[in-house]
Amino acid sequence: MSVGKVVLALDGMGGDHAPEVRRRRQSSMWLAVDAAAQGRADTVVSAGNTGALLAISMMAMRMLPGAHRPALASFMPTSRGETVMLDLGANLECDAENLAEFAVMGSVFAQVLLGLSAPTVGLLNVGSEELKGHEELRQAALWLRREGSPVSFQGFVEGNDIGTGKVDVVVTDGFTGNVALKTIEGTAKLYTSFVREAFRTSTFAKIGALFASGALVKMRKRVDPRRYNGGVFVGLDGVCVKSHGGTDALGFAYAIGMAIDMVRYDYKSKLVEGLARLHALPPTLEAPVLQAGGGGT
Amino acid sequence: MSVGKVVLALDGMGGDHAPEVRRRRQSSMWLAVDAAAQGRADTVVSAGNTGALLAISMMAMRMLPGAHRPALASFMPTSRGETVMLDLGANLECDAENLAEFAVMGSVFAQVLLGLSAPTVGLLNVGSEELKGHEELRQAALWLRREGSPVSFQGFVEGNDIGTGKVDVVVTDGFTGNVALKTIEGTAKLYTSFVREAFRTSTFAKIGALFASGALVKMRKRVDPRRYNGGVFVGLDGVCVKSHGGTDALGFAYAIGMAIDMVRYDYKSKLVEGLARLHALPPTLEAPVLQAGGGGT
Repeated sequence: MSVGKVVLALDGMGGDHAPEVRRRRQSSMWLAVDAAAQGRADTVVSAGNTGALLAISMMAMRMLPGAHRPALASFMPTSRGETVMLDLGANLECDAENLAEFAVMGSVFAQVLLGLSAPTVGLLNVGSEELKGHEELRQAALWLRREGSPVSFQGFVEGNDIGTGKVDVVVTDGFTGNVALKTIEGTAKLYTSFVREAFRTSTFAKIGALFASGALVKMRKRVDPRRYNGGVFVGLDGVCVKSHGGTDALGFAYAIGMAIDMVRYDYKSKLVEGLARLHALPPTLEAPVLQAGGGGT
Repeated sequence: MSVGKVVLALDGMGGDHAPEVRRRRQSSMWLAVDAAAQGRADTVVSAGNTGALLAISMMAMRMLPGAHRPALASFMPTSRGETVMLDLGANLECDAENLAEFAVMGSVFAQVLLGLSAPTVGLLNVGSEELKGHEELRQAALWLRREGSPVSFQGFVEGNDIGTGKVDVVVTDGFTGNVALKTIEGTAKLYTSFVREAFRTSTFAKIGALFASGALVKMRKRVDPRRYNGGVFVGLDGVCVKSHGGTDALGFAYAIGMAIDMVRYDYKSKLVEGLARLHALPPTLEAPVLQAGGGGT
């Protein structure tokens, strides 16, 4: 990797994020994304509105060959380190091809940022049996299972498998992913408040909290949302990282680090290669009953 | 309420839960559900397979007037008590009418089991803005907002609102609900393991854990999954409660208590009344642009 210098374009939360994208050509967000799209910067990090950033990125950057939709990918804490999850909200409806492409995007993301050579990938579903779930999930699973698949596909995983880190990459549509992400955040907050309240209930508990304060700080660090700050719009011909708006310098630093690593370890060309391998597999061969009958030919 | 005696039919985990429902007419599950359907029992509690229980209940019990599909409803822990969530997995695909009916079912469920006179209801979505999300969500929201609606509808809620208890009832389709439920369970387990590990990291922490043991036990009780055991298939002409298979006597007792209260506080007739009020509202009046043009008439 001979990247000497990675140039970042940063967008804070300033500027006008009104819904009319065209009027925003002079906004800080547009200028930052455009710098990365035009090669004046290698990557862009923004803490602005997610929807606006997605819209602008899609206008300024093209899709990579073989990618039909960008997905928002990020890390989730698990009991054995970090798991990549996508799509976290860029696409409310996804077909089998979108999901299969997201699987490749997530796999390359985990290779590049977690240093894994063959990350395991699962499709989020309501059960691990082959026949469960929506048709597009079953079709995507058939596709990813094929010989020559560019990902190490482990089949379906369930909501509780996210926290155990059963797979390195959890793939889902943007609606389900967004609900799951926010549900994780909400549950984490709830448990943190339960722990905090428990240590306030009695004098004994308060003394216990004093003794355990070092351990509790360590635990808080482990689940510190700033460590998981930074979502990447994968699939675009450019690296665009979304930082949480409410984060601080440390959180922003994690997002910037993510952006730099994506460029340094050549995410884009690895993804183009993976998507080419995916699209070289015929997708529907194993499910002929689902094809419409070719009457009259 | 002059119910003198509630008769329960109980089904453990025994019996043959093979996929062929017809062959199961002599299984313990069929016999238990049938007893409740035929009036030999007032309600049924089963710890068997969820899919089999749903299939058998739908065959043995009819739907209540105004209910098109049964939904699986249960309680979730929140920072301000309990919230009802449904559907937790009975229906992978739901249209606007299903969702609106689930809203009524959940509202009556919260009235009966939480003693609330006008429970607040929210539809789970990826944002709280009116224009977000799938079409069926927006249509259901329009319907529930109408004058004379049988529920106190608060609009859209997000995944993180489940844990804060922003609304008393969270309504979603069975796919999203099942993923959210299992994600909550997984995250809760992850945090519990983080707390446990934190208290083992040093001698100081271990001493702290001793002092705080009473508080930690109290906290564990607060989130004890046995307290949240019991999901009800609402919408059926009968009360059918699903207990978690892996629970113990205490968990089973909670599920039985839920079943008894559903009967004692007359869930069924309250639901029939609520559904009648829902269906008396014309559903599509506020969204004429979405109706197909009536060409030729």
